[in-house]
Amino acid sequence: MHFKVRAGTKEDCKEISRMILELAVYEKMPDQVKISHEELERDGFCQNPFFECLVAEVPEENKSKDGFTVVGYTLYFYTYSTWKGPTVFLEDLYVMPEFRGNGFGKGLLCKVAKVGKEKQCVRLQLSVLDWNTPSRDFYAAKGAQDLTDSEGWHCIRFDGQNLDNLANEAPKD
Amino acid sequence: MHFKVRAGTKEDCKEISRMILELAVYEKMPDQVKISHEELERDGFCQNPFFECLVAEVPEENKSKDGFTVVGYTLYFYTYSTWKGPTVFLEDLYVMPEFRGNGFGKGLLCKVAKVGKEKQCVRLQLSVLDWNTPSRDFYAAKGAQDLTDSEGWHCIRFDGQNLDNLANEAPKD
Repeated sequence: MHFKVRAGTKEDCKEISRMILELAVYEKMPDQVKISHEELERDGFCQNPFFECLVAEVPEENKSKDGFTVVGYTLYFYTYSTWKGPTVFLEDLYVMPEFRGNGFGKGLLCKVAKVGKEKQCVRLQLSVLDWNTPSRDFYAAKGAQDLTDSEGWHCIRFDGQNLDNLANEAPKD
Repeated sequence: MHFKVRAGTKEDCKEISRMILELAVYEKMPDQVKISHEELERDGFCQNPFFECLVAEVPEENKSKDGFTVVGYTLYFYTYSTWKGPTVFLEDLYVMPEFRGNGFGKGLLCKVAKVGKEKQCVRLQLSVLDWNTPSRDFYAAKGAQDLTDSEGWHCIRFDGQNLDNLANEAPKD
């Protein structure tokens, strides 16, 4: 099926927002989504954006059964390894179910790798849920290493009151 | 013991580079460090820096046995959750062994939380090795959640030839 991978624009944020929710439903945590398309517009399309994004788009004649032509997206940003240097981090990669199996996911992933390499990134990283076998297999087939399995890295988070408590105990300047 | 937490400068990069290697030795992967202090200077102190950093400094009279006054550092950057919004990611947090147990680590961590909150971050995230019990306990005692244990998140990486292969297969613009 013909499709195009292109940079996401402010005008795509409503479509991206719709797919962020679809992805969270797939990841079994839909009630976790608190970000609106207005916030995506603000955070991604400002002076120092927090992220960049790409969308996968099909021609009008191949639109989804609900009438969408933007049928996949990826959202990423730049991080830094003090061992290796600049890294591109893939926060989300999503293709609507009815369009899977046509190379859309691979197209989005490869494009992020290309953009990252152009920014001198030496790594592409991401997180995946342990039960999400289709995604784990997708990445493994392309040569990804699972660092949690191979080296024992765990993901740790502070939020809510725990984050506030830390901030309140910061040493004075 | 008296100490100060302050923003890291370009002039601190040699000291930070020394401690990056000390931390990698502690993490049992010293041969993984490929970043020089010149690269830190370039990547952290340019127009769009890849990271920010803080250092913990003691007065001259409390210098380390090898004569160092910059005895801890943290390096962090901003990421983005499509569920919650801006996040501050703690890449490294390190205090030289002879200065541990004096609140230096907590001071650095809390200051990053405060800086992150000022940037509207709603989360502070990091990665830790499963066998690194002192660090896991340190974060857990302050309310951190282990997302690998609780939700099953795994860290995934592409690098080297695998990353090149992805980039080479990117769809044309």
